[in-house]
Formats: sequence, structure tokens, C-alpha cells
Amino acid sequence: MRVAIVGGTGDEGFGLAVRLAAEGVPVTIGSRARDRAEDAATRARERAGADAPVEGRENAEAIGDADLVFVTVPYAGQADTYRSLKDHWPDGVIVCDTTTPLASAVGGRATQVLRPWHGSAAEQARALLPKGVRLVSGFHSVGAEPLTDHPHPVDADALLCGDDAEAKVAVGELVERIPGMRWVDCGPLEMARILEPLTAALIRVNKRYGVKGAGLRFSGREGWGAT
Amino acid sequence: MRVAIVGGTGDEGFGLAVRLAAEGVPVTIGSRARDRAEDAATRARERAGADAPVEGRENAEAIGDADLVFVTVPYAGQADTYRSLKDHWPDGVIVCDTTTPLASAVGGRATQVLRPWHGSAAEQARALLPKGVRLVSGFHSVGAEPLTDHPHPVDADALLCGDDAEAKVAVGELVERIPGMRWVDCGPLEMARILEPLTAALIRVNKRYGVKGAGLRFSGREGWGAT
Repeated sequence: MRVAIVGGTGDEGFGLAVRLAAEGVPVTIGSRARDRAEDAATRARERAGADAPVEGRENAEAIGDADLVFVTVPYAGQADTYRSLKDHWPDGVIVCDTTTPLASAVGGRATQVLRPWHGSAAEQARALLPKGVRLVSGFHSVGAEPLTDHPHPVDADALLCGDDAEAKVAVGELVERIPGMRWVDCGPLEMARILEPLTAALIRVNKRYGVKGAGLRFSGREGWGAT
Repeated sequence: MRVAIVGGTGDEGFGLAVRLAAEGVPVTIGSRARDRAEDAATRARERAGADAPVEGRENAEAIGDADLVFVTVPYAGQADTYRSLKDHWPDGVIVCDTTTPLASAVGGRATQVLRPWHGSAAEQARALLPKGVRLVSGFHSVGAEPLTDHPHPVDADALLCGDDAEAKVAVGELVERIPGMRWVDCGPLEMARILEPLTAALIRVNKRYGVKGAGLRFSGREGWGAT
């Protein structure tokens, strides 16, 4: 399983790169600029271990041989990112989009959200992706700070949604490699309309309590994951 | 502290009545029909204990001498409920609205939500309440099933939002009397736009996993509650 992270120089993508590489998953950090991607890969190895299998490339090159791609870009750049990559997706690749339509994309507050025309940022991604790409949305209730804080276990669940059950399981299996994390199947892709805004709520709670690592856990069942 | 529960014959309100009465908090279950309210009070005593201080009255009478009122009605009846009670609120009373604008209000699915004109059901409540009433919104991520399952501890946090800090603390202090529960201050009332839809996500997760008690916990800090 080769993983690429488009926008892997940003906080959330960088945290994912650190965690997955630390568990031995080959990760390619993608960025618009190759030197920034390589720099992020160097920093990721400093956190995940000198032998951690992480490298940096331009986005299009990063996704070219990937089995699973996280897209972790700010909402303001999400549509352009998908448009610029439309000819580069391997057929059948799984994409996990973590975008949250924070109002900061248009100069508003990160504690407020926009309502995308398609319903959610994930559904906008669906509209911009080729049919053969298998889309999952998730990670909106997992902060970048706890992700980056390797080797401290991550005290949060990844809430995933999508219309392709196998693709959700594939992302979920990566989640389960990260110490402390579980994943919860929250239903079809349209549930991203409810899950994406949780990022704004977490930012609000972080500010209110003066912390950086607020996250969410599901309760009411011993285990979650695949049904 | 006298508590009234408008819509206390419904699942969520009934669960709150059971839990609070079981902890010795005097509770009046309100309903449009007095006999249904009294019947619910009898059933609540069967669960909470024969001495549990819970009684039933018509809604307007129930709120007349209350310090804190939970409004736990379906979204389809929310506006009419507030309109019908507008002359009955004690000045300075605290109201905790738990309404979720589920699409089932208009014949749609309980796994989908409507977008209220005011932004959220809570903000609609604000528009219909007299100025002197202190409004809090919350409990959208706490299922009726775990609430009703006294004396088993409730494995979920109450996510509260509102513009009156003291009112949030007052609701939070009631939350803390329920075994297992904590509360999290999620910011101003407008955050209800993000919190209310969580009910639909919980319903979805309950269906997906064949459970009834899915709930949410905040992680990333030892304790939550008052800041």
C-alpha cells in the first residue's frame, strides 16, 4: 500500500505523513513545489524516525503510483487542486479527502463554515474526480496537533463517510495502524455535510479551553471499524 | 433548582426526566395533555425509583415555576410550542433546547437534516423567546436510549452552546449530576448549526452498527465543563 498526501506540507497532511511513515507505510508527501515537499519529508523523518519511508515530490508525481491518496488542502485551494490533478489519478485509486470548508477560506473565521454548493467539500471533490476514483471523506474531528505528536497515541476516532464500502475499509485499515486511533463508518459521502463542520467546532473548543488537541470519540459500542 | 421538561413524554425528554429525578432533582414533565404527562411521570418513577420527585402537568403549567426548562420536542412542532408558551416563561428562566431539525419533520429521513432559516433550531427558538429567557442548546449527541437506561452510567458528553455563560454552567451542573456524563462548552448559540446535525449522524451510526446507544465524547483534555 503506497500512500500519497496531496497538501502534505500542511499541518494535517504532515501529521498523517508522520504517523503512517512511523508505522512503516510508504508515504509520498506531495506539494506544488518539489523542494517544499522534500523539506517536509525531511522534517517528517525527524519525527517518525530516520528510517521512516517518506519522500517528497510534486503533487502530480506523488499520486502517480499511489494506491491511496489523502487530500489535505485548505478549502480555498481544493477545487483548483483537483482540477490540476485530473489527468494524473491512477485508475481505481482511493482518495480520502479531509477538507473542511472553513470560512477562513474567504477571510472569515476558522470557527465558522461555509456551505459548499455541492453540499460539502467532499461532494465537490466527487464532482471534480474521474469516475474510477474511489472517494472517502474523513478525519475532520482529528486535530493536526495530536497527529503530529508521535509517538504519543492519538486520542481520537476518524469519522469516515463515503459511498464505496471497500474504500472506507481500506482507509480504516490505515487508521487502525495509528496507535490509539479507531475509525467509525458514518455512512454515505453526503454525511460529510455533517462531519466537515466538526473541524470548526474543535477549533472553537480548543480556543475555549486553551488546548490544541481536542478530538472526538464515539461511545456506545466496544469496537467500531468495519461492520 | 426546579426543572421542567417540555415534550417530556418523548424519548429524549423522558430520558432526561428519569436521570434527573433519579438524582433527586425535582422534575415536572410537560405535555400538551395533562394525562399523558402524568402517565409519563408514573413511568419515570418506575425507572428512577418510587420516591423520585417527578410529576406531570400541561406544558404551560409545568414551566410556570421552573428555574430551568428543557425543550425536547420534534422540530415539526418546535415553533408552535414556543409560540404557545410565550406568555408563560418565568423571567430569567434558563431554557435548554435539544431540538434537531431532522428531515423527518417534513417526511424525509431521520439521517438527514434541514437547514432552518435562522441557521439552527436553537436560533429559531431564540427568535421566538422573550428577551429575558436565557437560552442554551445541547444534548444532540446524547441518545435517548442511554439516558433512559438508568442506573447504567451514560457514556456520552453533553455538547452545549449558548451566548449566556452562566446559563451554560447551570445546565452543565445538571449534566454533571448524571452518572458518567460531562459537558463541553462549544461556544456561542450559533454553534448549534454544527451540533444539531450530529443527531442525524448518530442515528446513521446506530443503524450501521445495529446499536442504539451511539454517543460522542470529547478527547484531548482531562476534564471539560466550566472554563
